[in-house]
Amino acid sequence: MTEAKGYAAQTATTPLAPWTFQRREPGPHDVQFDILYCGVCHSDLHQIRDEWGGSIFPMVPGHEIVGRVTKVGDKVTKFKAGDLAAVGCMVDSCRECESCREGLEQYCENGNTGTYNSLERDGKSPTYGGYSNYIVTDEDFVLKVSDKLPLANVAPLLCAGITTYSPLRHWKVGKGHKVAVIGLGGLGHMAVKFAASFGAEVTMLSTSPSKEADAKALGAHKFVLTKDKDQLKSVRNYFDFIIDTVSAPHDYNMVLSLLKTNGVQICVGVPPTPAQILGFNLIGKRRSLAGSMIGGIAETQEMLDYCAEHNIVSDVEVIDIKDINEAYERMLKGDVRYRFVIDMATL
Amino acid sequence: MTEAKGYAAQTATTPLAPWTFQRREPGPHDVQFDILYCGVCHSDLHQIRDEWGGSIFPMVPGHEIVGRVTKVGDKVTKFKAGDLAAVGCMVDSCRECESCREGLEQYCENGNTGTYNSLERDGKSPTYGGYSNYIVTDEDFVLKVSDKLPLANVAPLLCAGITTYSPLRHWKVGKGHKVAVIGLGGLGHMAVKFAASFGAEVTMLSTSPSKEADAKALGAHKFVLTKDKDQLKSVRNYFDFIIDTVSAPHDYNMVLSLLKTNGVQICVGVPPTPAQILGFNLIGKRRSLAGSMIGGIAETQEMLDYCAEHNIVSDVEVIDIKDINEAYERMLKGDVRYRFVIDMATL
Repeated sequence: MTEAKGYAAQTATTPLAPWTFQRREPGPHDVQFDILYCGVCHSDLHQIRDEWGGSIFPMVPGHEIVGRVTKVGDKVTKFKAGDLAAVGCMVDSCRECESCREGLEQYCENGNTGTYNSLERDGKSPTYGGYSNYIVTDEDFVLKVSDKLPLANVAPLLCAGITTYSPLRHWKVGKGHKVAVIGLGGLGHMAVKFAASFGAEVTMLSTSPSKEADAKALGAHKFVLTKDKDQLKSVRNYFDFIIDTVSAPHDYNMVLSLLKTNGVQICVGVPPTPAQILGFNLIGKRRSLAGSMIGGIAETQEMLDYCAEHNIVSDVEVIDIKDINEAYERMLKGDVRYRFVIDMATL
Repeated sequence: MTEAKGYAAQTATTPLAPWTFQRREPGPHDVQFDILYCGVCHSDLHQIRDEWGGSIFPMVPGHEIVGRVTKVGDKVTKFKAGDLAAVGCMVDSCRECESCREGLEQYCENGNTGTYNSLERDGKSPTYGGYSNYIVTDEDFVLKVSDKLPLANVAPLLCAGITTYSPLRHWKVGKGHKVAVIGLGGLGHMAVKFAASFGAEVTMLSTSPSKEADAKALGAHKFVLTKDKDQLKSVRNYFDFIIDTVSAPHDYNMVLSLLKTNGVQICVGVPPTPAQILGFNLIGKRRSLAGSMIGGIAETQEMLDYCAEHNIVSDVEVIDIKDINEAYERMLKGDVRYRFVIDMATL
């Protein structure tokens, strides 16, 4: 074991603070890399506050991790010291179940191993995330990163990026489709960029008129103020797909009513309370309500390569790690365009 | 106009009783046929009791209609006097919207014209259903019926049959798929027959052990008693598709938990209250909750032809029309295997 530095929450009610902990020496299949940037995901906050239950403390959050390789194990073939590398939301999975065999490790039947707030496959070693100086991960869960893109802006692709890229690809969204995006945060701004890049007509749905200019600057073609009844009526039975990134409770029946025949509402945000779904809203137009969670490792690599090729990155605000607790407060107020990223040189 | 005889509800609180009403003379594109059998659908009862709101009285229910053609208009090409014919849940639609152009008249953007409790495209002439001696319908909404199958057993195919056939075809259910059916009534027993006929492994999910023998006789391969925790656990993350025919409120989260990665719960029953859906139940396995409603005209013809070819019909109990009110009471108790069909000769 070697000593790593990071920021951790010691309990569900304490702020993040510096902490020293142990990481394993790289095994034959492991890649060790110095973390240069780590994105700040809303789920970091949910987990350090134990809002989903079962949190493991002390917790070092962070699953949007990019850096540069320092050491690799004997059997590692894909990376060498000096390479750029990234880790997203998972660092392992059972690798044997049907989902794993299909490259859908995120849906592992035996539970994937989260990058933090999780246990390694041994069932006892806690995992610690990217708010730290380095990380050691099996090469099969380490992604390659192009040097063409600004690294700080690449970090959020590892969660916000793949979470929106994956469903758009799974449902084969592209030219000729009308796509709406709800919620203009870390996930939503990436959904707008990807859907536009794939050739769809993109509409931002928002309760706030102030979002119109931002959404259009990101690539949205249309903007609908959902509080305005006439605007809302103009898009009833209109969309093929709606990417719903909102994790606060909201009116799913209103959202469903905007889908045309065969339309799909794809939830990538998870409200804490159950959604109320009226059966007629599904049946009357053969609509679907679906959910999607991050993406598999191969698809995450595909997404990173796509972004390098098409010059797509997240819009970020780079922060010092000492300001992380304040950043959480601003994130809660939606005061970030669109993702905080920690410059790990400030650790 | 000519005089027709039937059974009607005069208000939402009066039983069905004999009634005489007017039907139009067949126009150039119309087919007139004597009704031989008409199935009794649960939705007949919902509508005569105005449980969905907006009911139009007097109401002659019935949308599972088979009979023999007596007259056709000048321009009719598909039917001649003496032919067998059928009408299902729709007698018209706008024919111009995207859904109609795609053969999905049931999802007509301007609203399809229901066989009863609806208005013709003129917006004022009420439609009257199949609990009557004859019907006049545009040939584009009249189906051809094979003489190979027993007519009384064909009648329920027009609603219960197509309602289950259509989603199984839309989602391409077949060999290699694991399909569950919930609810062993008019819809459920047809879902079991079709899913088995298409080559899927079919499991009946039920709260009642008494359904096991019946389900297996209909073609189900497995039976799971959902009240038994161990049995339920054995099918967690198991099914590709679940056809949910239950229109009483029930636990959708339990149902969703039985779907594997990418699984779809397809609702063809509509509970009167909203379903409560936990986001993690969708997102954690990329599951979908979908709805489906009857089928288009071309698909309904395809289903009738498939049934004739594969000798598939509904299991029915034929009744006299004078016993219709009592039949409703029995239907409410689930005391029918699996569909009442009125012998219209008893009118």
